[in-house]
Amino acid sequence: MNFISQYILILLVTSILGGLFNHFKFPPVVGNLLAGILLGPAMLTLIKPNSFLELLAQLGVICLMFLAGLESNLSLLKKYLKLSLTIAGLGVILPILMLGIASLLFGIHLLEAIFIGIVFAATSVAISVAVLQDAGQLHSRLGSAILGAAVVDDVLAVLVLSIFSAVSHIDGNKNGLTDNWGINFLIEISYFGLVWLIYDIVPKLMNLVTRLSLPHSEVVFAFILTLVMSRIAEKVGLSEVVGAFFSGLAIGQTKNANNIIKTIDTAGYTFFIPVFFVNIGLSVTFIGFIKEGWFILIMTILAVFSKYVAGQWAGKLFDFTKMESRSIGAGMVSRGEVALIVAQIGFMNHMLTQEIYSDLIIIVIMTTIISPIMLNHFLHKIV
Amino acid sequence: MNFISQYILILLVTSILGGLFNHFKFPPVVGNLLAGILLGPAMLTLIKPNSFLELLAQLGVICLMFLAGLESNLSLLKKYLKLSLTIAGLGVILPILMLGIASLLFGIHLLEAIFIGIVFAATSVAISVAVLQDAGQLHSRLGSAILGAAVVDDVLAVLVLSIFSAVSHIDGNKNGLTDNWGINFLIEISYFGLVWLIYDIVPKLMNLVTRLSLPHSEVVFAFILTLVMSRIAEKVGLSEVVGAFFSGLAIGQTKNANNIIKTIDTAGYTFFIPVFFVNIGLSVTFIGFIKEGWFILIMTILAVFSKYVAGQWAGKLFDFTKMESRSIGAGMVSRGEVALIVAQIGFMNHMLTQEIYSDLIIIVIMTTIISPIMLNHFLHKIV
Repeated sequence: MNFISQYILILLVTSILGGLFNHFKFPPVVGNLLAGILLGPAMLTLIKPNSFLELLAQLGVICLMFLAGLESNLSLLKKYLKLSLTIAGLGVILPILMLGIASLLFGIHLLEAIFIGIVFAATSVAISVAVLQDAGQLHSRLGSAILGAAVVDDVLAVLVLSIFSAVSHIDGNKNGLTDNWGINFLIEISYFGLVWLIYDIVPKLMNLVTRLSLPHSEVVFAFILTLVMSRIAEKVGLSEVVGAFFSGLAIGQTKNANNIIKTIDTAGYTFFIPVFFVNIGLSVTFIGFIKEGWFILIMTILAVFSKYVAGQWAGKLFDFTKMESRSIGAGMVSRGEVALIVAQIGFMNHMLTQEIYSDLIIIVIMTTIISPIMLNHFLHKIV
Repeated sequence: MNFISQYILILLVTSILGGLFNHFKFPPVVGNLLAGILLGPAMLTLIKPNSFLELLAQLGVICLMFLAGLESNLSLLKKYLKLSLTIAGLGVILPILMLGIASLLFGIHLLEAIFIGIVFAATSVAISVAVLQDAGQLHSRLGSAILGAAVVDDVLAVLVLSIFSAVSHIDGNKNGLTDNWGINFLIEISYFGLVWLIYDIVPKLMNLVTRLSLPHSEVVFAFILTLVMSRIAEKVGLSEVVGAFFSGLAIGQTKNANNIIKTIDTAGYTFFIPVFFVNIGLSVTFIGFIKEGWFILIMTILAVFSKYVAGQWAGKLFDFTKMESRSIGAGMVSRGEVALIVAQIGFMNHMLTQEIYSDLIIIVIMTTIISPIMLNHFLHKIV
């Protein structure tokens, strides 16, 4: 099948499944992943992984992480800083500990076990936002707590991934500048100096670019900056998605942010992001499914439990009621884009085996289905 | 160089050159082409044509032709129908005749000569619009005449290209459904039945899609339709850009058109369209430049003269003043995207040799530089 035909098939099936899932209040992301599982080697074998798909998927993940950075509302965060930090801090530590230790007990070696823990550190609140909105709780202290914690959560996950990749050189094998561990580590740390600098000068650069009165110049500038930050991150041995995230954070403070979000959001979800999810779905196999049934079941329970307990505990510490605390916990349960991205990085760098990677995707899907059901349940018990 | 680095280089250089050209009131398209000539085999040899560039360039040309269809303001056209038809009709016939015959005299064989004529049939008024706007003449009867004629011009060029490709099967060699000339021709004609049908049902489909209340659904629908129409056009032996153009025309009548234009315009010019122009620039060589100096000079003169005379003549027929008629002629002189697209189709289907293709790109560039200078000159003589 010619690539344009494959592309049509991918966009058509993701739209239909995404639309159906959206209609029945299920997360569209899951619909997109299922499209990949359906079209790929696991079921219909209509589409196989290929370099064109990889390229569009790569642009998709860059858009996704850029948007994650761009939409990180740092001002909301400042308002509820301690609360958000507590929810997110516990919500990153507990999953890494619980799922990491469980993985070790399943006989997985240390590095892979830590990596599995990191995969489940990041929350995706997109689904919780929809549920909160339906319940009229999005702009309450409860809603803001969940949103703020999700931002910290993303930043923490990216930082943990950076540190882990700096230490283990998961991306550095091919791209590291030298073979010297110490120098590589210094170079990687100095990347954050660059991030600091960029964060400082981007608003000034953006003002300059806007004054050029060229059509589309602000979006083009944002996209070039994102590609450059991604490429440098990869060059110094970090992951390119880390660069895209920080580019988004930097652009997010400019006064053009809303305009840029709107364009990259629509364009990303039209051209690239569906291909990213389908590409992940293409890697899923059902070979180990029955063999590793227990692993999937126990890890799903731990993935749900670890985030739920962290949120509930933090809620109690900050004097939320019992049901509010439970709602915070339930709202943090679902994993999404960032977890999938971290898992994919692990798979591509041979940190995760094909079987484990397949299992993790299924567990992520399970959490996104369980979270809104739990959240809805607790929200309706709040008096 | 890794592909993302090439991509960064392309976006950076096209932005800078495009910006400079824009600043000095030169067409940014020329800046983009020069970026390709600069980066490619003709000069710095930093970037060579490759399959990833081809893919992004292909999406770029699909976006360009979709936008050309989408922005074809059919209601403005109806208001000045006879006038626009006359300017455009003469402006398509004269260049095909003059440049075709001149090519024959230069010893070029018949099919290639006709094709060269077709390349110069389509006008690009983007530059004229800017000049008209500066002179406060964009919304006058004069400005509307130029805009309306440009729409007819694009439609005529696409039709002529369709007929020519149906007859000569320039795309059909690889993709034709059968080897039977007559059946292929019938299939190609029936494509226009499909276009008619699509034009009829797209507004209803769009209403349905909009009611789904899915994020981005209207843009995704438009993009899928465009890819499908392109792919079918290619399958029946037409060119894929013809399909994208008709998809744009169909979407253009829906009430979501403005929103879709905005998104595809920004996204297309950010991600894909610069790659399309650079990819064309990569094909330019200066090997035949001195050898074919006379060819380029004479063809440039004819390219300018044929459009100018057509516009001036039509203007007089409809009682415009002498200077107004000359302005219409001057405003139609510049060729742009569509001419480059037609030339590229000819090159990729071995209808045009590498040398002729290089020459045509240079001639197109010349017309886009001469046209605004002439138009500006005549506009300032209108009392």
